[in-house]
Amino acid sequence: MVGYKFMGKAHSHAYKDVGMFFDLEAPVVMKAICGRDEQGVKEAADKFGWESYETDWKKLVARDDIDFIDINAPSDAHKEIALAAIAAGKHVFCEKPLALNLADAREMLDAAEKAGVKHAICFNYRFLPAVQLAKQIIESGKLGEIHHYRATYLQDWLVDPESPLAWRLKKEVAGSGTHGDLNAHSIDLARFLIGEFDRVVGHSRTFVKQRPIPSSTSGLSGKGTSEMGEVTVDDATGFLADFKNGAMGVFIATRFAAGRKNHNTFEIHGSKGTLRWDLERLNELEVYFREDEPELAGFRTILATDPSHKYAGNWWPAGHIIGYEHGFVHIVYEFLQHMANGSPFAPTFLDGVRCQEVLEAVDLSIERGKWVGIEEV
Amino acid sequence: MVGYKFMGKAHSHAYKDVGMFFDLEAPVVMKAICGRDEQGVKEAADKFGWESYETDWKKLVARDDIDFIDINAPSDAHKEIALAAIAAGKHVFCEKPLALNLADAREMLDAAEKAGVKHAICFNYRFLPAVQLAKQIIESGKLGEIHHYRATYLQDWLVDPESPLAWRLKKEVAGSGTHGDLNAHSIDLARFLIGEFDRVVGHSRTFVKQRPIPSSTSGLSGKGTSEMGEVTVDDATGFLADFKNGAMGVFIATRFAAGRKNHNTFEIHGSKGTLRWDLERLNELEVYFREDEPELAGFRTILATDPSHKYAGNWWPAGHIIGYEHGFVHIVYEFLQHMANGSPFAPTFLDGVRCQEVLEAVDLSIERGKWVGIEEV
Amino acid sequence: MVGYKFMGKAHSHAYKDVGMFFDLEAPVVMKAICGRDEQGVKEAADKFGWESYETDWKKLVARDDIDFIDINAPSDAHKEIALAAIAAGKHVFCEKPLALNLADAREMLDAAEKAGVKHAICFNYRFLPAVQLAKQIIESGKLGEIHHYRATYLQDWLVDPESPLAWRLKKEVAGSGTHGDLNAHSIDLARFLIGEFDRVVGHSRTFVKQRPIPSSTSGLSGKGTSEMGEVTVDDATGFLADFKNGAMGVFIATRFAAGRKNHNTFEIHGSKGTLRWDLERLNELEVYFREDEPELAGFRTILATDPSHKYAGNWWPAGHIIGYEHGFVHIVYEFLQHMANGSPFAPTFLDGVRCQEVLEAVDLSIERGKWVGIEEV
Amino acid sequence: MVGYKFMGKAHSHAYKDVGMFFDLEAPVVMKAICGRDEQGVKEAADKFGWESYETDWKKLVARDDIDFIDINAPSDAHKEIALAAIAAGKHVFCEKPLALNLADAREMLDAAEKAGVKHAICFNYRFLPAVQLAKQIIESGKLGEIHHYRATYLQDWLVDPESPLAWRLKKEVAGSGTHGDLNAHSIDLARFLIGEFDRVVGHSRTFVKQRPIPSSTSGLSGKGTSEMGEVTVDDATGFLADFKNGAMGVFIATRFAAGRKNHNTFEIHGSKGTLRWDLERLNELEVYFREDEPELAGFRTILATDPSHKYAGNWWPAGHIIGYEHGFVHIVYEFLQHMANGSPFAPTFLDGVRCQEVLEAVDLSIERGKWVGIEEV
Repeated sequence: MVGYKFMGKAHSHAYKDVGMFFDLEAPVVMKAICGRDEQGVKEAADKFGWESYETDWKKLVARDDIDFIDINAPSDAHKEIALAAIAAGKHVFCEKPLALNLADAREMLDAAEKAGVKHAICFNYRFLPAVQLAKQIIESGKLGEIHHYRATYLQDWLVDPESPLAWRLKKEVAGSGTHGDLNAHSIDLARFLIGEFDRVVGHSRTFVKQRPIPSSTSGLSGKGTSEMGEVTVDDATGFLADFKNGAMGVFIATRFAAGRKNHNTFEIHGSKGTLRWDLERLNELEVYFREDEPELAGFRTILATDPSHKYAGNWWPAGHIIGYEHGFVHIVYEFLQHMANGSPFAPTFLDGVRCQEVLEAVDLSIERGKWVGIEEV
Repeated sequence: MVGYKFMGKAHSHAYKDVGMFFDLEAPVVMKAICGRDEQGVKEAADKFGWESYETDWKKLVARDDIDFIDINAPSDAHKEIALAAIAAGKHVFCEKPLALNLADAREMLDAAEKAGVKHAICFNYRFLPAVQLAKQIIESGKLGEIHHYRATYLQDWLVDPESPLAWRLKKEVAGSGTHGDLNAHSIDLARFLIGEFDRVVGHSRTFVKQRPIPSSTSGLSGKGTSEMGEVTVDDATGFLADFKNGAMGVFIATRFAAGRKNHNTFEIHGSKGTLRWDLERLNELEVYFREDEPELAGFRTILATDPSHKYAGNWWPAGHIIGYEHGFVHIVYEFLQHMANGSPFAPTFLDGVRCQEVLEAVDLSIERGKWVGIEEV
Repeated sequence: MVGYKFMGKAHSHAYKDVGMFFDLEAPVVMKAICGRDEQGVKEAADKFGWESYETDWKKLVARDDIDFIDINAPSDAHKEIALAAIAAGKHVFCEKPLALNLADAREMLDAAEKAGVKHAICFNYRFLPAVQLAKQIIESGKLGEIHHYRATYLQDWLVDPESPLAWRLKKEVAGSGTHGDLNAHSIDLARFLIGEFDRVVGHSRTFVKQRPIPSSTSGLSGKGTSEMGEVTVDDATGFLADFKNGAMGVFIATRFAAGRKNHNTFEIHGSKGTLRWDLERLNELEVYFREDEPELAGFRTILATDPSHKYAGNWWPAGHIIGYEHGFVHIVYEFLQHMANGSPFAPTFLDGVRCQEVLEAVDLSIERGKWVGIEEV
Repeated sequence: MVGYKFMGKAHSHAYKDVGMFFDLEAPVVMKAICGRDEQGVKEAADKFGWESYETDWKKLVARDDIDFIDINAPSDAHKEIALAAIAAGKHVFCEKPLALNLADAREMLDAAEKAGVKHAICFNYRFLPAVQLAKQIIESGKLGEIHHYRATYLQDWLVDPESPLAWRLKKEVAGSGTHGDLNAHSIDLARFLIGEFDRVVGHSRTFVKQRPIPSSTSGLSGKGTSEMGEVTVDDATGFLADFKNGAMGVFIATRFAAGRKNHNTFEIHGSKGTLRWDLERLNELEVYFREDEPELAGFRTILATDPSHKYAGNWWPAGHIIGYEHGFVHIVYEFLQHMANGSPFAPTFLDGVRCQEVLEAVDLSIERGKWVGIEEV
């Protein structure tokens, strides 16, 4: 694994716990974690339970005792590491966004396909039981023809103008801002649930254009210094979408929504019913079915912790909720099985590319002030 | 009053009840109600408590014992009646939309201003206690600078393809469909709460293009005949907006949102907090303040039934909620006072015109496939 | 009508509006309102729309042009007025509690039955659409055998120790405190929904034993004087109940529940499902059905504003909610029809007596420190 | 560790993860797990990450390489194992209930105190961030004097009469039924949050008196056989309580509440505010403060995932919720620190005894049909 910060912790936890709750075809061995700062990565290796550590990802990629590489380094490093890992015949599991831009993302997909290695992109929210239930309801036809899709991904950690200039706010490192970080998740969920985008039109803002440069690389927490730096990504991006199936979509992502800590939501209206989901109450799915008798129809709040809900039975009895990190355990479980026995798996690098196409079409629409077809990027 | 159906009932109720709960400068006398169908209007006059009735609105307008005219006939009749009433020196209270198009709306505004009569448009939702509270919070500066405005107005009575072709679905009578009916309310609330629109871009759909022609004029209820007619208005319209103050906006109105019966909502993010409101729980306002201590900050659900909430003290003790029709009582109260003693009043025909401008800019943006400035219409 | 304060206003409004929204067998004529303070009752008569007023209820009862008497004077006056009205052959509609104690209540019931007049007690919450839906679901068998009933009636207007000593806090006028005022409603709803009580055991508190004597008789609002008076009723009373059908019950009423303004709730668990209701969101009923497929079962929030919901169709289209006072319109409608054409009606004085029995059994259980059977009082 | 079923899994997970998210004074080494069925315990050891396994707890207790024993075997085995472990000088962490009855619980407490070993009882819900926040708010005085405490612990897995006769339904193994299993948690939370009980009165039911005997020992899931056995514990128990500080309490626990999967809730009213919590949304705490301005006061939904919330900062950024099992990680963390460096720790066996006293006082009150003081048991 390359990277040992927020995502490094989430992924490490997944590898550590997956075997306890799921029956794996092949066991996980947590061979090595890699990071540039030796002290930091050594501590992470100890704490997270890795057998060894490296400070140069090239050494990691070169090791014979490693079958697959998990990349959760900053976004600007994804491509180089992934290509090297693929070249070394390793399977690759990459954090989103796949790359800093569409061209790079496509290059990574091509490389992986040609090399025949297994590849995955970490769109972890697909793997929550309530989201799986949403998918199953739509696929069963119970929602009918889809008319509307609305998504929000709202956070509030940038609304404070004193919040420091983290690496996520530098375009050259992060590739994109709120749009690439948060809308990427919303776009992937929309594709997963109702299908491909046709065209988009958007707008965006950088509300706070200069921020204090942080004293350390820690990013999100802690105070900044008195020196100011330029924010080179968006604070918020919204867009309208037409889907290939005729549905209308609305997406908004922002880090300026006071009180919304991690408000990743979707609401989907079909000819037979409605679904609503919110990451802050990730165990719940709200569902309305028109086929219910009129006097008894209402939004159902389904607590997706029943043994009948996918993955839920691997954890605790009904009503004992799970948390954010469980999505990582589930995606890791599915990808491990995929590598071990070839069971079907998505999302792959292809989904990373498709997501990047939509992101860039939105950017282009903002430049042009008009609708842009996905095939135009 | 002209019109005696859904809105006629809501308005009549307001005139009947307003004096019981509010102290009026001048008493209301419910002189006459007018409708084309004599049997229908006679029954309505009896049931709603009007002293007399007319079947020709021209006679109503000509009566000397009447000081002001309330117009809630279908939208295509608004202009002619209003102009005649204004010409006769009556004050005018008109249902939205003001007219079938912007040119007509502007003509009505001009006529009213030149004649010096009092004029009002029935954007009733401004007058609910929770919405008044939202306004007061924003004006006090407690929300800070506004960054985001999101509105939905969702209903579901058209999702059934057998739902008949009501007059609201014919462009020549209604002027517009979901957009003009529902987005009009959302646009007015946005203007009321955070100010003027700068530019917009939208998309729309007519999901069901043919519907059964109804056997009667009753519209919403009852079965249609076997004959089919063309739906000439939109079923759903969504749009992005930039506001003059720099805020980003998203609006979506549809009658295809299964389970959302009257889901008129807004969510507003400012630099100091967030507001959220939903017509289906119209007594409640959700508020988040960043200035609360971090460990105690959370969305507050304020039940706007306290004597400190505008209008609430005129009704019942705290916790005894009010309903949809109370907004009409409040707007009628304010307009009656305005006519009696010149107290400030909005929304007037000017607000009707401003709303129409945004509606038409959205339509134009749909035609052109790109952003349209409000000043372009 | 006798009384013109809070309840006088609510009842007057009901008589005024009922004919507008409901088809009555016989029209309502609002003949006369009665109160001791001439200035006050005169103003009320004007404002509420009564033809005349009286300052002596004996004169009111003696009038030949009056067929029925609505009693919403303070509780200590109920019995005398009701007996006189019954003696005069008037139908009687009485606010709860029926009387200050069980013996008086039984006397009133006997008198009404012997005289053959129609009688009603104003348990208005039975007549809200969501409560009617709850009743209908239980009667249809969809909830199965009832196992649990839990009720709360929580307010917070006494939690402030400076809140003055209103008449409701004097045992000699009010008969009882929170228990008689709030638990009375909860007991009636329980009887209405699941049947008769078998035995009870309770506890109660008067948290604030002395309060400022109010300068006027206005009671709830306004500051008190510096003189203090004794609170002679309970601030809070809770009790366990066994029902005759075997269900277990829990009831708690208090005016010391900060933030709960009018939190009249019930939750009922049956062998096939669960119901939950809350007066602060009175249009909604939450329902869970075990017969739903396990992966799709969840609490449904039914918005009881559909034409299929009792009374809802008389008001507005689906999703346009109603308020607190509508319950009075509905009960008045049913009682007017009952008087006009003998259609079935409950709750009558019998329900007032049954409710009083439970209230007094709870009081007795508190005295004795043990369970008391209802038949013991 | 003794036991490897539901609780065994939850505890094992806690030991496995605690070092990854918390800085421990002394590392955890998962030495051995113990269970009677060799095949089962061997698999559990592998899956959960224990170094070795035992099939006889006496051998476990005798091992020199083990410093502390975690007991999560069925309740009837707690006492014997705990006494042996204490005798061997091991620290002991015991699942609730401490023992089958109060006398045994007191004996265990005495033994532990005399031996000077560290002891803990697994009341895990104390250790959730939102519950910690509740505690902190009460201790800070922000809630004022406590007037009311209401708790429910509702589940629904027994409402199906075909649900088999699990060991939890046999008094001789489980000691108690719903009362001992669920009310035990509610009693502990009440003691933790507002203090000691003074007296109680209750009632209980066994709604389904016979159930199918399960074919295996698995308990909760799976079909039973056609043979029926007697249910010897309660399905539901409710009780009123008076607290030593004068507060009134209501508690109800049942496994017959359709749709309530794990509805462990409390609502606390103080003279300055209200708190409400629900295990099914365990990351949230609802709070109302009377000191807020009247027009802005409302129930706040605090998402207790901020770094300022206890334990939350050890996991993920704000808004990334945690689940049921995290409470075990936290209690294990605190007890490990307590053993390593003597930092303060509760709940100990003393809390187990206190809880048992209340449970038995309720049982006694049911027998006697009247209030029972805690000191009477």
